[in-house]
Amino acid sequence: MPRLSERGDLMPDSPIRKLVPFADKAKEMGRKVYHLNIGQPDLPTPEVALQAIRNIDRKILEYSPSDGIKSYREKLATYYHRFNINVTANDIIITSGGSEAVTFAFLACLDPGDEIIVPEPAYANYTAFAILAGAVIKSIPSKIEEGFALPPMEEFEKLITPKTKGIMICNPNNPTGYLYTRTEMNKIRDLVKKYDLYLFSDEVYREFCYTGAPYISAFHLEGIEQNVVLIDSVSKRYSECGLRIGALITTNKALRKNVMKFCQARLSPPLIGQIAAEASLDAGDEYMLMTYNEYVERRKFLIDGLNRIEGVYSPIPMGAFYTVARLPVDDSDKFCEWLLSDFEYNNQTLFMAPASGFYTTPGYGKDEVRIAYVLKKEDLAICLKILEEALKVYPGSKVRRTMAEPSNVV
Amino acid sequence: MPRLSERGDLMPDSPIRKLVPFADKAKEMGRKVYHLNIGQPDLPTPEVALQAIRNIDRKILEYSPSDGIKSYREKLATYYHRFNINVTANDIIITSGGSEAVTFAFLACLDPGDEIIVPEPAYANYTAFAILAGAVIKSIPSKIEEGFALPPMEEFEKLITPKTKGIMICNPNNPTGYLYTRTEMNKIRDLVKKYDLYLFSDEVYREFCYTGAPYISAFHLEGIEQNVVLIDSVSKRYSECGLRIGALITTNKALRKNVMKFCQARLSPPLIGQIAAEASLDAGDEYMLMTYNEYVERRKFLIDGLNRIEGVYSPIPMGAFYTVARLPVDDSDKFCEWLLSDFEYNNQTLFMAPASGFYTTPGYGKDEVRIAYVLKKEDLAICLKILEEALKVYPGSKVRRTMAEPSNVV
Repeated sequence: MPRLSERGDLMPDSPIRKLVPFADKAKEMGRKVYHLNIGQPDLPTPEVALQAIRNIDRKILEYSPSDGIKSYREKLATYYHRFNINVTANDIIITSGGSEAVTFAFLACLDPGDEIIVPEPAYANYTAFAILAGAVIKSIPSKIEEGFALPPMEEFEKLITPKTKGIMICNPNNPTGYLYTRTEMNKIRDLVKKYDLYLFSDEVYREFCYTGAPYISAFHLEGIEQNVVLIDSVSKRYSECGLRIGALITTNKALRKNVMKFCQARLSPPLIGQIAAEASLDAGDEYMLMTYNEYVERRKFLIDGLNRIEGVYSPIPMGAFYTVARLPVDDSDKFCEWLLSDFEYNNQTLFMAPASGFYTTPGYGKDEVRIAYVLKKEDLAICLKILEEALKVYPGSKVRRTMAEPSNVV
Repeated sequence: MPRLSERGDLMPDSPIRKLVPFADKAKEMGRKVYHLNIGQPDLPTPEVALQAIRNIDRKILEYSPSDGIKSYREKLATYYHRFNINVTANDIIITSGGSEAVTFAFLACLDPGDEIIVPEPAYANYTAFAILAGAVIKSIPSKIEEGFALPPMEEFEKLITPKTKGIMICNPNNPTGYLYTRTEMNKIRDLVKKYDLYLFSDEVYREFCYTGAPYISAFHLEGIEQNVVLIDSVSKRYSECGLRIGALITTNKALRKNVMKFCQARLSPPLIGQIAAEASLDAGDEYMLMTYNEYVERRKFLIDGLNRIEGVYSPIPMGAFYTVARLPVDDSDKFCEWLLSDFEYNNQTLFMAPASGFYTTPGYGKDEVRIAYVLKKEDLAICLKILEEALKVYPGSKVRRTMAEPSNVV
């Protein structure tokens, strides 16, 4: 057979999905697997969205425009206005999920060899999309002891070369739940301005900010309007991950023109998804408040519970629905795999995402995991218990074992 | 602002969609525009598919597996068996449209600078996807006088370099409607084998072969099993362009493994689309026969009509629902734009795709257009009349004008 591309070999396995075969095996063995690995909320999709799908009154499921259905883009612009993101329908390009928005942003802005700086831990697939575009991610680790705050600007400046084209942030952050402050966002703005960089800002979790601190969008930063590319998605805010509807938003016309070439090549974003996403904008405050309150409670419950387990530490996330926790283990990749393949507690086990996949700096995240609090409190309670019991018997555990209890290793 | 990527500048405008703003303007002026530019059938989506969508009984629209829903892949395997394409569910990866299947195939097989050979005119977006992957398309023009048959193998061999990694075909062909014969497919097989190339075969129009000649799939070719990547989509066969459901099929495990990395990065293909696509497999022979017979009639009607217009020539397409016709005009890009911006016949006009965008060899296709026969016969009759009248008055027309009739130029 002909050789495969180097790019394909370079592409990382998804740290979120690579352990799926082990989870499948556990399920085949009749074990209940709790999924904390993936940002797939268990909250209901808005009823208006489901209704819109059930009421589809079309004879032909046609292509939609390459930049998305106009009425949806117009309504979406109004949604953004509520967050002081002042855009028109023309600034919005609908994509197949936020994934496609990041991909097209990178493809339209970055050439092979170009560099972007990303504070890490970071959403793992940014690396994948960068490799897809031939670009290089230069990462700056943030620290769990500092709650994953923005690393100092000097660290960014050290990495800047003539190849540096942009900075990628996720705010509120996946995987850490960190929410950048006004001061931090201004620092990013100054850097972007000084070096004339793109600022790719993934803000899909904007609805989920828990501390009363304001959500500062990249669109709020003055003087870098032509540099900002906003990434969005309906997946998380409406529990609509399966629809694959995202958006790329920029007031930079030249950039939009080139992004549109990629959009035209792939013809159009999903039709039914757009119809449901448009309807979701009518879900109302009640729906958003229900989901918000639910995450507030889960967050408190999970973080309290994690920090009560011996040797485990989680900072308090300010937004999104993830946390990166430190575990008393030798290697969280091994531990997460072991949980699925070798452990059970009352015939149940846990699926967590090893944090190593969220870092590109080698060696980082080896004792950390990303936990998505996308399950209800009762389930999280079981998950905490499973984790606690697992840490007692995991061969690479760093906490002393409670010899009184029987081993649950199978 | 920072500079855009060279890749984005290189990306071609879609020849199918680039004239959309002119069509929109014509519509704003109250003109009826007949769309022959795009492969968007006017035939109904199967009722079973629409029903499946209306009956969606889910509370949460969740991610689906990165390679697609298993039950759909299993059912799809059975569908392929009817065409002697012997695959299992494991060989099938569901994608967001055929577009994503081509993109991922190129990304996983081709590195920047790698070359693929494509007989042209070819589906324009192959070039776009190749540019996306940094690959280079080397094209061999087929000739309208020969009905766009496969060019001689010597022409292919002349283009082969150490950088050549594959051949891309579309069979039945978009835009020409040509169907490769067994002899031609065997020649392709021999070439692929001799030079150990990938064979990317886009066979989304397999249901539409009109001449009784057999449809030879790349999967029927012996001895190159590890080299074949089949591209498929439900868009055309079920009039489901808006669903964005395609597939990449290969028995090459190593290739599938790398393709899956791209799939995992973008998380999953559209959920609702997969549900509808799975249901469509129950549409039954009646539905397929209805669409088939409809295209048979339209094809005859359109091609007869075209060849009756002075100076116009179209070969008889053997499959798909397109033809590339030669027009007596100076420049079909100009003519197609002029039709939308400057011409009307009883307040109606035509939208056709200039064929230049389907060639990469400069100068080719200048007097050709692609016409999709995706409208019913009554509409095609009006389209033929509009074309005939337009050619009489178009300033760059090469047929003598009928002075007796009044000019329709506006």
